[in-house]
Amino acid sequence: MARRTGRRPGNPDTREAILGAAREAFAERGFDAASIRAIATSAGVDPALVHHYFGTKEQLFKACMNFPIDPAEVFPKLLADGPDGLGERLVRTFLAIWDSPAGVPAVALMRSALTNEWTARLMREFVATQLIRYVLPRLDMDPAEAPLRASLVATQMAGLAMIRYVLKLQPLASAPPEVVVAAIGPTVQRYVTGDIGQRE
Amino acid sequence: MARRTGRRPGNPDTREAILGAAREAFAERGFDAASIRAIATSAGVDPALVHHYFGTKEQLFKACMNFPIDPAEVFPKLLADGPDGLGERLVRTFLAIWDSPAGVPAVALMRSALTNEWTARLMREFVATQLIRYVLPRLDMDPAEAPLRASLVATQMAGLAMIRYVLKLQPLASAPPEVVVAAIGPTVQRYVTGDIGQRE
Repeated sequence: MARRTGRRPGNPDTREAILGAAREAFAERGFDAASIRAIATSAGVDPALVHHYFGTKEQLFKACMNFPIDPAEVFPKLLADGPDGLGERLVRTFLAIWDSPAGVPAVALMRSALTNEWTARLMREFVATQLIRYVLPRLDMDPAEAPLRASLVATQMAGLAMIRYVLKLQPLASAPPEVVVAAIGPTVQRYVTGDIGQRE
Repeated sequence: MARRTGRRPGNPDTREAILGAAREAFAERGFDAASIRAIATSAGVDPALVHHYFGTKEQLFKACMNFPIDPAEVFPKLLADGPDGLGERLVRTFLAIWDSPAGVPAVALMRSALTNEWTARLMREFVATQLIRYVLPRLDMDPAEAPLRASLVATQMAGLAMIRYVLKLQPLASAPPEVVVAAIGPTVQRYVTGDIGQRE
């Protein structure tokens, strides 16, 4: 019999069975099409138990990803002051998270997404759903351009994480946050609100 | 133009022994301090054999990295027209390489650099030496700013590779190269020649 974790409720085997089924469902069918009922069936438990252990479907998704931050908390704060200065705020917040203890699971998650097609799929789905839920409704953005803008932001943020925290290329790896914010903030700002050369 | 032969010369075991010793030496001591003589000793062969199999120390380094392009060939072309438009040319060339068959070993190399500290060290050393050898002498860049500018370019290019070719986040993963060039070229240009907010 597996040992109970002090912090989390429920039987750890059941929790793991639910998480395994949920990861498979989210990666295969996507967030919207994956149902708690189907996840519960595949894990051999009652749907009520899934809700009891993990809360909403979205909370279950976050638990699957072991994501280092809660987008429901971070994004509304970032976006509260509107699009002006968003690029700098985003880079500053990102650095604060990665420079904190949360940076350790973040590096692990990034490595996993890069080496495991299944985590990559989960990550794509996670980015897309979080974007639709928390970012787009708060920014006055042309919906036709939003997905490209979001993936451009992703290139810059993922690359920053990779070079600063994983490859640790100097001098960026030890540059003070404000140097990074001044250099990279304007890039992110342009990807969100500036001219990105769309000519279609 | 680098010579390409269908078969590589020499005993494969000896080649592998030399490559193993060279990877260790470059990762531990760096490119400059690693000597062909020490690599040969550690591989149990004559230094002349290292030269015979791999050519110069730099060619040996490239063989160790299994790098998808030859920087000695690519960078001078990119930089021949000076800094104007360099950002767009760099992104265009980068996409052409990653969209070609050379993109497959490039993805493998990136995964390896992200999951293996030893490959990460080799990669850092490789970026630094190639930069000093091929890029800085051809750009009229403030030497005090050059390393930060180079690592900023690295964040954008590494993130582009990661999002487009490894995570395959849409719509960037299937965007036509010219859309990507128009969006990301100006970022790279700014990192190379523009105001990056240095206030020291």
